[in-house]
Amino acid sequence: MSTTPPPVSGAWSTDDPVGDRRFHTFATEHPFAVENGSVLRDVTVAYETWGELNDDASNAILVCHAWTGDSHAAGRSKPGHPAPGWWDDVIGPGKYIDTDRWFVVCPNVLGGCQGSTGPASPHPDDGRPYGSRFPVVTIRDMVRAQWHLMRHLGIDQWASVVGGSMGGMQVLEWAIMYPSRVRSLVPIASCMEASAQQIAWGVIGRRAIRLDPRWRGGDYYDAEPGDGPTEGLAIARQVAQVTFRSDNAFTQRFGRSLTDRAKIGDTFGLWQEFEVERYLQYHGDKLVNRFDANSYLIIGKAMDLHDVGRGRGGVERAMRRITVPNLTIGIDSDVLYPEYQQREMCSMLSLNGVANEYVQIESTHGHDAFLIHFDRVGEPIAKFLDQVDRNG
Amino acid sequence: MSTTPPPVSGAWSTDDPVGDRRFHTFATEHPFAVENGSVLRDVTVAYETWGELNDDASNAILVCHAWTGDSHAAGRSKPGHPAPGWWDDVIGPGKYIDTDRWFVVCPNVLGGCQGSTGPASPHPDDGRPYGSRFPVVTIRDMVRAQWHLMRHLGIDQWASVVGGSMGGMQVLEWAIMYPSRVRSLVPIASCMEASAQQIAWGVIGRRAIRLDPRWRGGDYYDAEPGDGPTEGLAIARQVAQVTFRSDNAFTQRFGRSLTDRAKIGDTFGLWQEFEVERYLQYHGDKLVNRFDANSYLIIGKAMDLHDVGRGRGGVERAMRRITVPNLTIGIDSDVLYPEYQQREMCSMLSLNGVANEYVQIESTHGHDAFLIHFDRVGEPIAKFLDQVDRNG
Repeated sequence: MSTTPPPVSGAWSTDDPVGDRRFHTFATEHPFAVENGSVLRDVTVAYETWGELNDDASNAILVCHAWTGDSHAAGRSKPGHPAPGWWDDVIGPGKYIDTDRWFVVCPNVLGGCQGSTGPASPHPDDGRPYGSRFPVVTIRDMVRAQWHLMRHLGIDQWASVVGGSMGGMQVLEWAIMYPSRVRSLVPIASCMEASAQQIAWGVIGRRAIRLDPRWRGGDYYDAEPGDGPTEGLAIARQVAQVTFRSDNAFTQRFGRSLTDRAKIGDTFGLWQEFEVERYLQYHGDKLVNRFDANSYLIIGKAMDLHDVGRGRGGVERAMRRITVPNLTIGIDSDVLYPEYQQREMCSMLSLNGVANEYVQIESTHGHDAFLIHFDRVGEPIAKFLDQVDRNG
Repeated sequence: MSTTPPPVSGAWSTDDPVGDRRFHTFATEHPFAVENGSVLRDVTVAYETWGELNDDASNAILVCHAWTGDSHAAGRSKPGHPAPGWWDDVIGPGKYIDTDRWFVVCPNVLGGCQGSTGPASPHPDDGRPYGSRFPVVTIRDMVRAQWHLMRHLGIDQWASVVGGSMGGMQVLEWAIMYPSRVRSLVPIASCMEASAQQIAWGVIGRRAIRLDPRWRGGDYYDAEPGDGPTEGLAIARQVAQVTFRSDNAFTQRFGRSLTDRAKIGDTFGLWQEFEVERYLQYHGDKLVNRFDANSYLIIGKAMDLHDVGRGRGGVERAMRRITVPNLTIGIDSDVLYPEYQQREMCSMLSLNGVANEYVQIESTHGHDAFLIHFDRVGEPIAKFLDQVDRNG
C-alpha cells in the first residue's frame, strides 16, 4: 500500500491533466431539472470519442459505463487516466467495436466524478463542491444528460447503445425514453429493475460510507489528505467486489492462503490476513484513489432506483416501447445480476417482434466477466454490429 | 425502532435474570490455553439442558449453536431470554429431538456473550471486561471448553452431536478431536473449511465494526447507553443477513416496495427506504440489543479460521478420523454454505465406510432455512436419531 495518504476524494478536478476528456456544458440558460425535482445549472458531461463520425452521422455508437467506470473506455493510461481504458481490448481500430468503421462515444455519467457534473464539482452559486447539496439522480437523468451530448455532437440516432451492468440500465432507458434515437441495443449483465437483493447490497455499502466519521455528512472536501471517508468507501467497494465475482473464482484464486505478513506474524490475530482479505484491501484502496465517496453514494442510489416501469404502468408496458434489434448478453456465474434477469429481459423484448438474440457467456468470474473476458463479450457484439451495419 | 437508546453491548451480564441458564466454571486452578497461545482462567460455560440423563448416561445429545445463537435452543421467552428457543420447534417432549427420550445439552460458545466467557466477561485480574484483551479463539477451543462441560455433567459419550452453520463446524471438530466421545453426527449447512468467499464476507463485517468510532478499539463497555458500536455491528449483521437468505426470497418478500415513510416523503432521497432496507435495519437493530460487537468479531474470526485440516495434514486426512454414522443436511438455495460443500463433506465421510446419509432441504430461504423449516430439518434428524437409538 502507498505510504502517501490517500486523497480526500478521488474525483478528477480541473487542476488535473485533462487526458483524452472533452467536455460539453449545457443548462447554462435553462436549468436541468432532475427526476427528484432539484434543478442543476451549468451541467457538464465529460466524454471521449474514438473513430470518425461519417457524413450522415449514421455510424455513432454510445458506450455506457458501469458504477465506477468513466469515459476512458479505450486508450492507454496517461496523465489524467491512471489506468488503460476499461474496454480497451474491445474498442479500437480492428477491434470488436471497430473504430475504423464506428464513431464511438463514451460519456462519464451525471453524478460521476471524472469530469461530468457530480457531488465533487463546484456549485455554480459559490464555486464550492456540491457535497451534500448534490441531488439524487436517476438513470433517466443520466440518459437525458447524454441526449444533450448527442445533439451537441450532431448525431440524430445512435447506431447502437451498448453497456454492461449500470451501462445496460442506460441502454434500456435510451430505447424507452428516445425510441427514435436508437437503432439497436446491447444490454449486458443488467436488469429491467433493481431487485431487492441488489438494493440490499447497495444500501449496506452506503451505510458503511455514512458510518465513516470522515464522511462528514457528505461535506468533506476541505479535509486534509488522508482525512477523507476512505475506509467507508473501501468497505462499500469490498461488499460490491465480492458480489462482482464468484465463490468458485475466489476458491480457485485464493482458497485459504494466508498473506506472507500473516504467516510470519500472528496467525491467530483478529486482523491477521488471508489472501482474500489482502485482495479486498487492495481493491478498496485502489478505488479510493480514483473515485469520490459521494459519487459512489449517488450512483449506487441511481441503480437502486432503476425501474424501467416507474411511472410507465409497469415493466412490461415500458419494455413494449422497445422496437429495435437487440443483443442481450448474460453471464452464467453472475450472482449480482443473475442470468435469469437477462433471460427475462430478452424474452420480454422478443414479444415485441423485433430481432433479438441472447448470448450467455460461460465464465467462473461472475458479474465482472464482461470486464475480463473481452473476447467472449466482444465476439457476439462484433457479429451483432455487422448485422446492424448491413441493415443500415 | 425503539426510542430508548440501544445498550452499549447486548451481552448478558450477571445483573440480568439468569433465565434457564446454568453455569460450569473450570480452569480455576489450571489455565485454559487457547490455540493462539493465550491462556484464560476461570472459564465459564453457560448451558441449558432438557430431558433427563439416563442411568448409563447414554442418551445425551449435544446441540451446537450458530454465530449469534446461544444456549436457549428451546423454551419460551422469559426474563433472561428475550426470544423463544431458536430450535424450540425441534427440541422438546414429543418433538423431533424428543426430550422424553434424549437428554439435550446446548452450551453457549466460548467467546460468546450469553453467559459463557467472552470479551464482555470480567477479566479475573481486575474484574473489568476483557474487551480488546480477549484472545482470538477457534472452533477447536470452543469444543475443548464443551468437553469440560461434558465431563462435569457425567457424560462419557454424546449419542449425537448436532448443529447448523458454525454449529456444524463444532460437530466435525468433536468427531475429529474426541472420536471416542461421539456416537453419531449431524452437521447441517456447514463446511470442512471456510471458503475464501465466506472469509471475505466475514472480514467486511469486521471492518464495519472497526470503522465505528464507538467501537473504541474494542474497549467500549464504559460508554453511555446509545454510545456503543451499534451501527458498525448493525452493518456487519446486514452483510450476513443478505448472505443468510436468497435473491429469490428477497424478491418474493420485498420486491421493490417502498416503506410507507418513503412513500409519503422523499421518494428520491439518498436515505429513502425500500422495504428491504427497513428489513435489514430491523435485523441490525434487533441484534445490537442482544449481542456484543466484540463477540461478533471473535466468533466471526473463529469461523474464518475453521479448517479441520489445519495441523492435521489436510482436510482429507482429518476427515478420515471420523468413523461414526452421520447425517449431513444441505439446503438447495444456500449461497453462503453452498450445497456442494455439504456433498463434499458427505462423500468424504462415505470413504470411511461408515453409515452416512445426505439429505437436501428444498427451500427458497437460503442458509437460514434450518432455522425456519423446522419440519424439513427435524424429520430427517428424528429418523436418524431413531437409528442411533436402535443401534445403541
